[in-house]
Amino acid sequence: MSGPETKEMAPQVFGKLTKDIEAIAAVGDRDKLFTRERKGWVGFVEWENYPDKKAAAHKILTSQTFLPNPEFQLGPIPITNPVLPGTHWKMWHHAVGGELAKIPDDSWDLVLKEKHSDMLHLLQFPYNGEPPKRFVTAKEITPNPLHFVRNHGGIPIIDKDVYSFTMDGLVKEPRSFTLDDLMDESKFPRVEKTGDEVPQAPWAEGAIGTITYVGISLKKVIKACGGLVDGAKHLEFYGADTYFKDDEVMNYLVSVPWSKVKANEVLLAWGMNGEALPRIHGYPLPLVVMGYIGARSVKWLYRIKAIKNPTRVFVQSKMTDDIQIQEMPVSSAIMSPWTKQVVIHNGKIRCKGWAYSGGGRWPERVELSADGGFNWYTVPPENMSKKRKWTWRTYEFDLPCDVEGWVEIVCRCWDNALNNQPPDIRTAWNWGLHVTSSCHRISVYSVNKTKPLTKTRLDELEKADIPFGPITVPVQFPSQT
Amino acid sequence: MSGPETKEMAPQVFGKLTKDIEAIAAVGDRDKLFTRERKGWVGFVEWENYPDKKAAAHKILTSQTFLPNPEFQLGPIPITNPVLPGTHWKMWHHAVGGELAKIPDDSWDLVLKEKHSDMLHLLQFPYNGEPPKRFVTAKEITPNPLHFVRNHGGIPIIDKDVYSFTMDGLVKEPRSFTLDDLMDESKFPRVEKTGDEVPQAPWAEGAIGTITYVGISLKKVIKACGGLVDGAKHLEFYGADTYFKDDEVMNYLVSVPWSKVKANEVLLAWGMNGEALPRIHGYPLPLVVMGYIGARSVKWLYRIKAIKNPTRVFVQSKMTDDIQIQEMPVSSAIMSPWTKQVVIHNGKIRCKGWAYSGGGRWPERVELSADGGFNWYTVPPENMSKKRKWTWRTYEFDLPCDVEGWVEIVCRCWDNALNNQPPDIRTAWNWGLHVTSSCHRISVYSVNKTKPLTKTRLDELEKADIPFGPITVPVQFPSQT
Repeated sequence: MSGPETKEMAPQVFGKLTKDIEAIAAVGDRDKLFTRERKGWVGFVEWENYPDKKAAAHKILTSQTFLPNPEFQLGPIPITNPVLPGTHWKMWHHAVGGELAKIPDDSWDLVLKEKHSDMLHLLQFPYNGEPPKRFVTAKEITPNPLHFVRNHGGIPIIDKDVYSFTMDGLVKEPRSFTLDDLMDESKFPRVEKTGDEVPQAPWAEGAIGTITYVGISLKKVIKACGGLVDGAKHLEFYGADTYFKDDEVMNYLVSVPWSKVKANEVLLAWGMNGEALPRIHGYPLPLVVMGYIGARSVKWLYRIKAIKNPTRVFVQSKMTDDIQIQEMPVSSAIMSPWTKQVVIHNGKIRCKGWAYSGGGRWPERVELSADGGFNWYTVPPENMSKKRKWTWRTYEFDLPCDVEGWVEIVCRCWDNALNNQPPDIRTAWNWGLHVTSSCHRISVYSVNKTKPLTKTRLDELEKADIPFGPITVPVQFPSQT
Repeated sequence: MSGPETKEMAPQVFGKLTKDIEAIAAVGDRDKLFTRERKGWVGFVEWENYPDKKAAAHKILTSQTFLPNPEFQLGPIPITNPVLPGTHWKMWHHAVGGELAKIPDDSWDLVLKEKHSDMLHLLQFPYNGEPPKRFVTAKEITPNPLHFVRNHGGIPIIDKDVYSFTMDGLVKEPRSFTLDDLMDESKFPRVEKTGDEVPQAPWAEGAIGTITYVGISLKKVIKACGGLVDGAKHLEFYGADTYFKDDEVMNYLVSVPWSKVKANEVLLAWGMNGEALPRIHGYPLPLVVMGYIGARSVKWLYRIKAIKNPTRVFVQSKMTDDIQIQEMPVSSAIMSPWTKQVVIHNGKIRCKGWAYSGGGRWPERVELSADGGFNWYTVPPENMSKKRKWTWRTYEFDLPCDVEGWVEIVCRCWDNALNNQPPDIRTAWNWGLHVTSSCHRISVYSVNKTKPLTKTRLDELEKADIPFGPITVPVQFPSQT
């Protein structure tokens, strides 16, 4: 690789790097520019109130040369765990420096501390991870260490004793609230709500979980500020995490309509399944929107602003063809068996999975197919967990399958508005595959013991004490006599 | 048809008929048994409070021999208008007699008086009809004479001066309300809401329409009764029309959950598009449920009952695999061109249609395909009517189509919860095809003027002054020289 071209290029690359360093240095002292916003809020830089600070970070990010992104859409995804390291996000944090410099390391330390050791780490930083399939539907309520995480930035480490958030914008009396304020039951009635969270990204099928939150309704907080004024119709939520997009920095920021808040479906939650929130889930106080995509729930909340129109930030509008995604469509998945599994059965394959719908709708009917979607069997209601607003239903079903060899198992669900799922991924309507709810399909290798020849072969294997190993390995005794 | 068998059967049939007449006569005097319930309510028999009356009607209906139903699922549907006469429903009304005897004739007279002469009469009695496709999306608000009608029984003819309905069941103070009570603006704030109505049955694609209702919120009426008591969670609505099912008679009766009423989404409406309600639409007072299927809206309301659990009547539960349908799934349709049309175009076929979703959700994205669903084109937002809660969006789009001959145009829609439509009817989940929202597909014959040969042929036809008639008729001059 040391041809003449490389030799010629070297001085130029070196020159570019020197120039980068000079350009970055010219922006100023990063430790002073990008400081911690509040005492006791490690890793929190406030961007939204400081256009100059945003401009400085932008200058740094555009001066530096970063590696191009690897291609994973058309090539194989690594089988490592973490699957992807998040190289760019780490580099951006280090480039901006200041309070952001230590965040990637701190965040990974928190993952190792707070999450289950068997988690599938899809992205190391910002952390995205989900539990392995065998844990997904194992319990009605997902234990905190196994709940999926979809973070958009690093984890701020906030001291709860100095925690507060501000409620401002179009409210009569803007003010701040500490945790003690919110926990004062004489002022704010405490509520407990159970719901599912799902991300809007196309993950594996374990990115779902059921949580019981304890907290208060945001509606009461707005009331404590004297209510909305001047035609406010939306609430904008600000998270203390830093988000990067197109060489710009920003705090994580989304909005929901007032009607959602008014219906008491937006919570400020300090309890998750009977425990304090883990830091990775937004400690000390996340804002939780029931029945909307997880991306509308904001962790490490530091500000709520009442506004007239939905927020136009990238994550809410621009990445999805200008459609403001709030509720999730109906969806479902097969958790067992798993794809490429060899399934030995007696004419019926035991299937387990979940079904969910957004906006407070619930699954009414689940169907399974063992032939790619030609014949369908309905899961009897008694094989499904209870209907409940905001939550999924799990199912178990013995799916008839007569044939042997590769079969495709598909599941689909109807919710109570009778919406159901498109059969295949071709209905995806945006390049990022956001909120693509087509039927979950898995390929399994069917070995049907009710077939005499199969039965004989399996008996032979058992007699010879040979495990039914990978089907691609030739058996060690003659298969015909 | 006068073979030996017929001759032999005749005395038996005659004997059966005689027996029928005797059995019916034994039940009693039908004019006394099935009388008008209230003065000024022509055609209203109250069944729900009189088990004996129901039993008497059942006895009559089971004593008599009715013709078997004709087979329309596997044979051609008549091309008459009315398409189907509703022979059985008429026979049942005549058999029960009393106040019901005149209803089929009275109802048809009202159809002719109140509905547009171009209506497509799908069923003469009980009346089901929809406007022809060319009218469906012509106006933002559907004119009353063109609005589709899905009646479940005959039309009671009610004098508004004696009209009242009762609110009872689990409310603190049960009472009755006259129209004057409801129209008293000092007691009940008047509301105006615009929404779409759609039936839950699989009709042609014209069974949708947009209405502006004027009336009051049911919530205020419940408040005027001192509120709900004893754990009431649902509201049951009684209509003055008579419904028949499995030889039983009943009033039309459904329920909706209290949460829907509480959100001010259930109206008592006396105005429809600036006019009084037509009798066929529930005059003087129907109950309208915003964003639910039309079948939950009850015409000729005579009673509301607060109850603990959803009603278990046939129309709400038993006809749909025990799934309680309330909201509609996302759906869409092509109103122009129409199926089997020959479309002459310049490489793009002008398509018009509508898209809708239930529960207050709205269409976000509409796509069209001219190749049966392989390639899809997105309708630009500026080619769609405004987003509005509860209502449809109409669209117009020039759909690229290069090929000639039979092509299949398909449309599909995503709503704001990103639900979309299954591609074909195979996803139907109940035998009656209730709330089947698969993509609308039409076959048209494409004649593409951008193709030189086609252009030449069309020019020849024009020069020879020969109309471009049915494509199956041979042209009268040599097509080759």
